[in-house]
Amino acid sequence: MCGIVGIVGKGNVNTQLYDALTMLQHRGQDAAGIVTCDKGRLAQVKANGLVRDVFRTSHMLRLTGSMGIGHVRYPTAGSSGPALAQPFYVNSPYGIALAHNGNLTNADEVSKHVFRADLRHINTDSDSEVLINVFAHELHRLNKLVPEAGDFFTAIEAVHERVKGGYAVVALIADYGVVAFRDPFGIRPLVYGKRDTAHGVEYMVASESVALDTLGFTLVGDVAPGEAIYISSNGELHRRQCAKNAMLRPCIFEHVYFARPDSIMDGISVYKARLRQGEKLAEKILRERPDHDIDVVVPIPDSSRVAGQALAQNMGVKFREGLVKNRYIGRTFIMPGQQQRKKSVRQKLNTIELEFKGKNVLLVDDSIVRGTTCQQIIQMAREAGANKVYFASAAPAVCYPNVYGIDMPSAKELIAHDRSTEEICKEIGADWLIYQELDDLVAASSEGNPEVTEFDCSVFTGQYVTGDVDELYLTRLDAARNDNAKSGESKKTVDGDTVIGLHNDMQELG
Amino acid sequence: MCGIVGIVGKGNVNTQLYDALTMLQHRGQDAAGIVTCDKGRLAQVKANGLVRDVFRTSHMLRLTGSMGIGHVRYPTAGSSGPALAQPFYVNSPYGIALAHNGNLTNADEVSKHVFRADLRHINTDSDSEVLINVFAHELHRLNKLVPEAGDFFTAIEAVHERVKGGYAVVALIADYGVVAFRDPFGIRPLVYGKRDTAHGVEYMVASESVALDTLGFTLVGDVAPGEAIYISSNGELHRRQCAKNAMLRPCIFEHVYFARPDSIMDGISVYKARLRQGEKLAEKILRERPDHDIDVVVPIPDSSRVAGQALAQNMGVKFREGLVKNRYIGRTFIMPGQQQRKKSVRQKLNTIELEFKGKNVLLVDDSIVRGTTCQQIIQMAREAGANKVYFASAAPAVCYPNVYGIDMPSAKELIAHDRSTEEICKEIGADWLIYQELDDLVAASSEGNPEVTEFDCSVFTGQYVTGDVDELYLTRLDAARNDNAKSGESKKTVDGDTVIGLHNDMQELG
Amino acid sequence: MCGIVGIVGKGNVNTQLYDALTMLQHRGQDAAGIVTCDKGRLAQVKANGLVRDVFRTSHMLRLTGSMGIGHVRYPTAGSSGPALAQPFYVNSPYGIALAHNGNLTNADEVSKHVFRADLRHINTDSDSEVLINVFAHELHRLNKLVPEAGDFFTAIEAVHERVKGGYAVVALIADYGVVAFRDPFGIRPLVYGKRDTAHGVEYMVASESVALDTLGFTLVGDVAPGEAIYISSNGELHRRQCAKNAMLRPCIFEHVYFARPDSIMDGISVYKARLRQGEKLAEKILRERPDHDIDVVVPIPDSSRVAGQALAQNMGVKFREGLVKNRYIGRTFIMPGQQQRKKSVRQKLNTIELEFKGKNVLLVDDSIVRGTTCQQIIQMAREAGANKVYFASAAPAVCYPNVYGIDMPSAKELIAHDRSTEEICKEIGADWLIYQELDDLVAASSEGNPEVTEFDCSVFTGQYVTGDVDELYLTRLDAARNDNAKSGESKKTVDGDTVIGLHNDMQELG
Amino acid sequence: MCGIVGIVGKGNVNTQLYDALTMLQHRGQDAAGIVTCDKGRLAQVKANGLVRDVFRTSHMLRLTGSMGIGHVRYPTAGSSGPALAQPFYVNSPYGIALAHNGNLTNADEVSKHVFRADLRHINTDSDSEVLINVFAHELHRLNKLVPEAGDFFTAIEAVHERVKGGYAVVALIADYGVVAFRDPFGIRPLVYGKRDTAHGVEYMVASESVALDTLGFTLVGDVAPGEAIYISSNGELHRRQCAKNAMLRPCIFEHVYFARPDSIMDGISVYKARLRQGEKLAEKILRERPDHDIDVVVPIPDSSRVAGQALAQNMGVKFREGLVKNRYIGRTFIMPGQQQRKKSVRQKLNTIELEFKGKNVLLVDDSIVRGTTCQQIIQMAREAGANKVYFASAAPAVCYPNVYGIDMPSAKELIAHDRSTEEICKEIGADWLIYQELDDLVAASSEGNPEVTEFDCSVFTGQYVTGDVDELYLTRLDAARNDNAKSGESKKTVDGDTVIGLHNDMQELG
Repeated sequence: MCGIVGIVGKGNVNTQLYDALTMLQHRGQDAAGIVTCDKGRLAQVKANGLVRDVFRTSHMLRLTGSMGIGHVRYPTAGSSGPALAQPFYVNSPYGIALAHNGNLTNADEVSKHVFRADLRHINTDSDSEVLINVFAHELHRLNKLVPEAGDFFTAIEAVHERVKGGYAVVALIADYGVVAFRDPFGIRPLVYGKRDTAHGVEYMVASESVALDTLGFTLVGDVAPGEAIYISSNGELHRRQCAKNAMLRPCIFEHVYFARPDSIMDGISVYKARLRQGEKLAEKILRERPDHDIDVVVPIPDSSRVAGQALAQNMGVKFREGLVKNRYIGRTFIMPGQQQRKKSVRQKLNTIELEFKGKNVLLVDDSIVRGTTCQQIIQMAREAGANKVYFASAAPAVCYPNVYGIDMPSAKELIAHDRSTEEICKEIGADWLIYQELDDLVAASSEGNPEVTEFDCSVFTGQYVTGDVDELYLTRLDAARNDNAKSGESKKTVDGDTVIGLHNDMQELG
Repeated sequence: MCGIVGIVGKGNVNTQLYDALTMLQHRGQDAAGIVTCDKGRLAQVKANGLVRDVFRTSHMLRLTGSMGIGHVRYPTAGSSGPALAQPFYVNSPYGIALAHNGNLTNADEVSKHVFRADLRHINTDSDSEVLINVFAHELHRLNKLVPEAGDFFTAIEAVHERVKGGYAVVALIADYGVVAFRDPFGIRPLVYGKRDTAHGVEYMVASESVALDTLGFTLVGDVAPGEAIYISSNGELHRRQCAKNAMLRPCIFEHVYFARPDSIMDGISVYKARLRQGEKLAEKILRERPDHDIDVVVPIPDSSRVAGQALAQNMGVKFREGLVKNRYIGRTFIMPGQQQRKKSVRQKLNTIELEFKGKNVLLVDDSIVRGTTCQQIIQMAREAGANKVYFASAAPAVCYPNVYGIDMPSAKELIAHDRSTEEICKEIGADWLIYQELDDLVAASSEGNPEVTEFDCSVFTGQYVTGDVDELYLTRLDAARNDNAKSGESKKTVDGDTVIGLHNDMQELG
Repeated sequence: MCGIVGIVGKGNVNTQLYDALTMLQHRGQDAAGIVTCDKGRLAQVKANGLVRDVFRTSHMLRLTGSMGIGHVRYPTAGSSGPALAQPFYVNSPYGIALAHNGNLTNADEVSKHVFRADLRHINTDSDSEVLINVFAHELHRLNKLVPEAGDFFTAIEAVHERVKGGYAVVALIADYGVVAFRDPFGIRPLVYGKRDTAHGVEYMVASESVALDTLGFTLVGDVAPGEAIYISSNGELHRRQCAKNAMLRPCIFEHVYFARPDSIMDGISVYKARLRQGEKLAEKILRERPDHDIDVVVPIPDSSRVAGQALAQNMGVKFREGLVKNRYIGRTFIMPGQQQRKKSVRQKLNTIELEFKGKNVLLVDDSIVRGTTCQQIIQMAREAGANKVYFASAAPAVCYPNVYGIDMPSAKELIAHDRSTEEICKEIGADWLIYQELDDLVAASSEGNPEVTEFDCSVFTGQYVTGDVDELYLTRLDAARNDNAKSGESKKTVDGDTVIGLHNDMQELG
Repeated sequence: MCGIVGIVGKGNVNTQLYDALTMLQHRGQDAAGIVTCDKGRLAQVKANGLVRDVFRTSHMLRLTGSMGIGHVRYPTAGSSGPALAQPFYVNSPYGIALAHNGNLTNADEVSKHVFRADLRHINTDSDSEVLINVFAHELHRLNKLVPEAGDFFTAIEAVHERVKGGYAVVALIADYGVVAFRDPFGIRPLVYGKRDTAHGVEYMVASESVALDTLGFTLVGDVAPGEAIYISSNGELHRRQCAKNAMLRPCIFEHVYFARPDSIMDGISVYKARLRQGEKLAEKILRERPDHDIDVVVPIPDSSRVAGQALAQNMGVKFREGLVKNRYIGRTFIMPGQQQRKKSVRQKLNTIELEFKGKNVLLVDDSIVRGTTCQQIIQMAREAGANKVYFASAAPAVCYPNVYGIDMPSAKELIAHDRSTEEICKEIGADWLIYQELDDLVAASSEGNPEVTEFDCSVFTGQYVTGDVDELYLTRLDAARNDNAKSGESKKTVDGDTVIGLHNDMQELG
């Protein structure tokens, strides 16, 4: 998963992009990047690390200009190659920088096409580099010395024709402005807002509305599925539907786990959706075990807290912070003669004995993916003296990989893949395991905005809305994941952050 | 505040010290340091920054040896000078490294004495440097070529005679072992534990029991006030009461805010103490406003959550996560032509409108210090549509500075200094403000261990248990704080972390 | 001035490029960069600093592939903008990285053309970015899915038509190979060589032959003016004359000062040319002052030593190392309350009193540019007790700026601009000043290869071989230099090396 | 070898110490350090690297105070352990920082004594740490609350009694001033000078007079063997002879190779000594081969140039720069699957064919140590077409290790150890080899100051003036060198400069 932002303002936007990326940091902690445009010249800073570590004062002093875009990166293993810091840049046509959240499912095929059609070299396995080149190629074909809003939209129409997958995109065109668009199913979120200033209206697009809130922008609405918006450098907003047959199928996993609770996505409050998840799960529990013996509900911090509170309240059971999260996680050093030890869950979570000893405890998590963490937590609960340990998942069983930009393991690594609920329960060592019903999960979200009736629920159902994800695709995905995993390990031996890449400097270095 | 740890093990202890410091990181995020001892030689790494940033693989490879100590630092403005990275080192006698948590109230006087008595130069304003030199001086006076447990205890007895204040100390004596001791009132916490291994028993001392838990050590108990323990390099544990008239008066603020909830201190579970704080506060509210109109209790994350849950439950009111904490905080850049903007609370917290709109909300925090943050939060609650905003503090009004190691502003900056509850309520803009009673706070802790009847409650009462803190002392403290504040600002202009100090290298660099 | 290198080998070429750049480091100490190509993917590392500081092991491990190019940068103030680290990169067509030594005199005009013709955005003031885009544009126009040698040569022919100035270029075309070419006057040097290995023939191009020597390549010859060579990835060498009316007019300043003495350029040994400079200057001195009273000849180290030895020997006068060069130069710190002090020549050179006291000394330098250094040295000679101080320049008076890639001050800053030899002599404080005759300088070089009859001597004559350098051009150059000088100062206030630029990463970072 | 400096001035001395260390950088390029004293507080910066890389602006801003000392380090393998960055620090008594050039030959014994006598822990193998502790111990014994010049001198007298070896020392005593002293044989150089300013007289001590020259100090003279000087913080200079039976036996290798030619040491101009070395060697050559067939004399740059010029001139043979030194040396990267290649001499030196082809060449070097370099140079000369290659050494055969601070290999690695001149000649592949006579070498120096009649010539004679260097000592030295060599290699695998050590910070970090 990743977070993106774009601003066209009336003064320098560097510190605002920085603050926005900080607000979107939960969507990606691996790398961060900003590109701004000042008098037609682009300036870029990007590197691995948290936003607060990547950008220094000396960078900010050079990231000048009243328009720019930013990106925070999560390691997207769902793609066919290793993830890279964004935005990406091509100088032809016009000078374009682009950042995106999502994953293209036909990147290989499109990559070959842009080479054949326009001799464009794709130097990485990143689908973002493919995306920028498709967009650039389609824009170049129009061959306008001075492009207008309609030209950008025409190019985006062609992009939608060409690529498949989930993608929310911001792009900065030197001198001209910022464009933003969302795939025809609106799988990945994208909102925009405005702010009135003494010098005129400023616009901002972002993955989540919290970024707007903090910076004082007012949420105007979502970029619709297939829609594109263009904010020109002088602050005019243009919109156009650029996809045929666009229909909204947003990723429901944003509501389960990924998004911040205080975000509004496609008109749905994530917080309220999670409350309803808890309520519905409570109903199911009471339905299945009307005479349950649960003494206390304990959330696994932090993401299940909202659903957990509603669940406990609706069940009339005490809700307690029985697990304490350690917010400072250290590295695991491999010392000579030692084998790599896995950082156990114990270093991330600790039990409050009082809440477990002699009690029947219901642990609540947002979802179960690999199952290894909940296995360890259940073990810890028992060591803390729990009488019985029940486990509730606010989402249904995760059985299929995500191919639209969420970093999730391959099918084989998913504990629910080819296992019944009873088998999973046994595997994680719980005394009882209960999953949310898919209908309830969808309803929890849909009740927030009745116009949104369907969601991308592929990780639960194996049905991929883009229609092009078949057995062969998933098999290759598995293979690619394994290769990355292996090669990734050998890279960890060197201290320090090595930056290697292709870059043309904007101005004199250092 | 700071965190300290010491381990005498059977193999290299570097990664265990590292993991322990990570678990104690909440006690200080400013700087971190480790010293280990291998075949009589000491190795040290210390620098500003989080534990995860300070230590690299190349460091760990050199921090060899089966005994060592570690420290995480919080900027202790309660001392008379700027805080410094620890441990400190003196080579005479024996080679000693020392780290401490707390603050000496007679550091200046003692500093002069060690110079006059032993020509020992104190190069900084750190009371830790004073402390190591007092200890070294007293140990040196015994003039033992091969010191024994009794010699260390004799020296510590003399230290207790000489210094005043709150201090929990670990020290590593090259070749010999680790000593740990606690001031005669036990103001700052210190526990120790053991672990059986195939090669023998290993011992660990730490500021909080959570560090023992995570590393698989079993809590043996607290170091008693005035008591010292010595673990020799071959793993023998010695204990002795080294202070006359020792009596336990632990800092109650650890239970209010500072310690992790899953720690056990002086036999008291911090978690349970906080639950009781919530219960007692609920009683007071119901007592004072039996017909209250509170719709929802919202904790200010994260430290007030435990008390808040108990409070809500005991009041029979809904408890909701209406404030979302942004866990990623960025820097504030000062751009040319801009004035420094304060990072507003809005960048750290965001409201969930649903929980405020049209409701009467009771916000709960652990305590109120300056009052500026709760003023802003109340304002945010109103902007989110709250009908009425009430505010509850799990601790009584903080009216006096802390002089035993907690970084708290001077009296003038405390909102409760010379103000009535009504005046404070008006100042922060609440519709009603309610403080915990001091008796209730003490009881909430004391009920966890009836043997602990009295606490250091100086920030609430102005009564300092060490008996040497008078008006003059507090006035000088104020002045020193102001000077530091001023000089501190000018240091922030340079990027990067400049290390300047006095160090003798252990072995060839780099 | 800059240095360039390209290698197409049979195994990884990274360490060889590194070694070659080290040998060319005298041509540029400001920045360094390498791009290699492995299985169609390009990897790049470039940064400010010396070669030994820029490249680390972690970089080298990723700079894989059997073909690559490299660059060392000198701050070329002769260009219209600030200098930048090279190679530059464009992804369309094919993926091209390019590095060059020299300066285009019509960069602005060409920059506008590539935008109009192909919408290519030039993001910097670097003429290298212009050059790569002209080449890319011309190559793209041919629209070959699989380009061949002839296509590269056709594009280079178009480049020669389009750009003016001095340029020696290497470019790496992903998957295909390395091309190298030299401007139609051969102003900047470029040689190539080969090496037989068990796996086949390897080729290398470089600015100077010393780079070939050290790596065990045999010098084949110079790239002729206007000629291009293409070494395909499988190791085949192709050559073609790509310019009409090409004629050799190499920069004579390479022989005076810039090149290493052990290089052979256009068939001329730089060492021998310098010996002949000394011989001819001796003749002139003896001619003008047959009864001179010179006691000792002292070279100003290091570049005038060869000419100085020949001069002294031919005059029959003792040659002595009377000036000692300090090889370690420190920074000048600006402390609060201090004004910036210029590092005096005294920190770079020191006198040996013995060789000055009471003697008539002839100081020899390769040339006189600003005159400030020789003024100070003459002063130091006097303070060391010299009786008379004479000064000889192995080159004629430098009166005009260089526009073909050598960083030289503008006309106004040149001491010889609008001054007679007598006036200059007075200005620098010498008792006598003697310049080489231009004819003698040319002869000293030409005698090394009679086929080279003319040189670019523009800094002495003001006649620029490219025919497009007029008064207006020089005036704008002056203005640009002044602007850079000003803005440059403000950049020096921040410690550390800030890298800001546009880059697309090749693979996962760090 | 190392370089040291100390200044007591009237304003901040940080930038002057920096400039002085830059001038002494040829004495050590491994590490650098500065300690200053401001109002009784010491500030220190030290790290591995060149002076220009170690100190940043942020450091200099904190290295305040009008007195301070500095050090540049060369890896002294002549000691019993790895070398370390200096100055060293002890806080008792008074706070002392100390730096030294040289090597103690009885460090182990003294180290044990300071522990037994004063329980002082020595944490490293550095003899500098031993030296500071001996000095500190002896000073502490006097137990003066306010020490005076005489007290420092009394302590230094005791140091001379206790330690053996070669040492030139500067020490900074917090609040009081700078002391400097030289071993009773004056083996290592130390000079001092003064400078009059508007605020009074400033004093400076340094390893070489060039440091004084550049900073505008006037050389007053050498610190005599066994003598100590003390410059109090208010600028008063005190001197005293502190050793019994002091006699001057300076290291003659300073004149051969180590010192800068423009330095004056013990009244002897190094430059003139080298000229005389060349003259005397010329005489020997003419004596032994009156009918020699030498065409040209070629110096091996840079250190043999002065002697070479005099040699060539006195023989009446042409002197030519036939070998070009590459001033930029890169690292040797160990790539996967490759074995470590030695950087060949070819990457440091290149031949000018003209000066070798068909000629009989006399190569001149200052001395021959291992012989591997001259073997390679002779090979290069032959490849460049030399007819005959003769080799002259300005120093006699080096047969014994240096134990007084020069990093020289052990006896077994010296080519002249147990080999006749004929055998060496054959080993290096020369057609003739000629060594300077020891008497001539001594005379070349002695003629510069007739009062200096004897020198430490131990590397030539095996006679060590301190009288304590026996077979056993040298055997242990050999063993230690081998161990260091082995362990040293494994440290080179990590990029970046790891700083590990023991340090007490002066003030708040970063």
